[in-house]
Amino acid sequence: MKTLKIPEATIIRLSVYSRHLTEVDRKGIITTSSGNIAEGVGVSPAQVRKDLAYFGEFGTRGVGYNVKDLRQHILRILGLSVDWSVSLVGAGNLGLALSTYKGFRDRGFIITSIFDADPQKIGTMIGNVEVMPIEKLIEVTKQNHTQIGIVTVPGAAAQEIADKLIKAGVQAILNFAPVVLNIPPEIELRNVDLTVNLEVLTFNVGAQRF
Amino acid sequence: MKTLKIPEATIIRLSVYSRHLTEVDRKGIITTSSGNIAEGVGVSPAQVRKDLAYFGEFGTRGVGYNVKDLRQHILRILGLSVDWSVSLVGAGNLGLALSTYKGFRDRGFIITSIFDADPQKIGTMIGNVEVMPIEKLIEVTKQNHTQIGIVTVPGAAAQEIADKLIKAGVQAILNFAPVVLNIPPEIELRNVDLTVNLEVLTFNVGAQRF
Repeated sequence: MKTLKIPEATIIRLSVYSRHLTEVDRKGIITTSSGNIAEGVGVSPAQVRKDLAYFGEFGTRGVGYNVKDLRQHILRILGLSVDWSVSLVGAGNLGLALSTYKGFRDRGFIITSIFDADPQKIGTMIGNVEVMPIEKLIEVTKQNHTQIGIVTVPGAAAQEIADKLIKAGVQAILNFAPVVLNIPPEIELRNVDLTVNLEVLTFNVGAQRF
Repeated sequence: MKTLKIPEATIIRLSVYSRHLTEVDRKGIITTSSGNIAEGVGVSPAQVRKDLAYFGEFGTRGVGYNVKDLRQHILRILGLSVDWSVSLVGAGNLGLALSTYKGFRDRGFIITSIFDADPQKIGTMIGNVEVMPIEKLIEVTKQNHTQIGIVTVPGAAAQEIADKLIKAGVQAILNFAPVVLNIPPEIELRNVDLTVNLEVLTFNVGAQRF
């Protein structure tokens, strides 16, 4: 096995391909081609082939790809052939939205525990998960062998929460708080800024200016 | 003015640079360099120069960039030198989270109206905006000259809502519903799938497998 630097854009497209293949599979279609995938998701066939080529040889020349096999293979690449346990910290509006977000469960991300600092929220149920105090975060996250933490607390509390999650053994953190977190290099960190999505739109609306 | 295809990754980085420059400006720093910006946001100096070069010449050789000027220029490129009126449709958990999302207002995205189909929500206030029935969507969005619609309704309702938003004159739609929308080519559309963020993390956690 060699170490290759895979572009993040490729990983994001693999995620999109796998969703497309799930749909195609549901329709009972057995084989597909880079051309069909490309058309289904709006990229070029060459891009599809290039993205897949990072991970070895797939498909049969002149026959194409077996839909089920390719889908399984991509899910394995993305680390989605197993379920992931997720601790969510911050049961505000965004935390609530994420903990009931159907897409997470569909892709194998199971929110196994939810924590909040607000005594009024502690003990309430979100879906079938009870909101627990922050003081329980390390213990429960360790017990569950939780690999991923989602941080939706206010900016001022985010670093402390990230530290606790790392102490509890998570390997990856998805941060929605609008602050830069100090994280050891072995922990995967992804910051989500929802505003960026609007800015890509406003750029494109005004793009005729260039 | 010529038409250039600007990579989306460049637009997203410009958004990141402008946030960094806002911070630097707040600290009272007058000039900066591609090296400083690169270090501040975690890309290479060459990448910073390449991204900025799409939009002409900035800065002075040997002196660097004036922080305020460069920030203003990037905001203008992103279409953020003016405020944008936003209609939000769907006052569920995600809609609530977005309508109180501080980042939007900070960057000039003002949610001027909120709509929902649930009679129990209609008439309630979210911040200082009253939730209105879907029947009012076209009229109010037109009246406000709203340019952007955010769709956080269930998948089954999303296309109908998008059609109404377009009828009301929006130029761009940010779609959180897990469906493919049919949108005329002159309308800018961006689909947000929050799960992709987790999949980039799980890929990276397992990346030593390749």
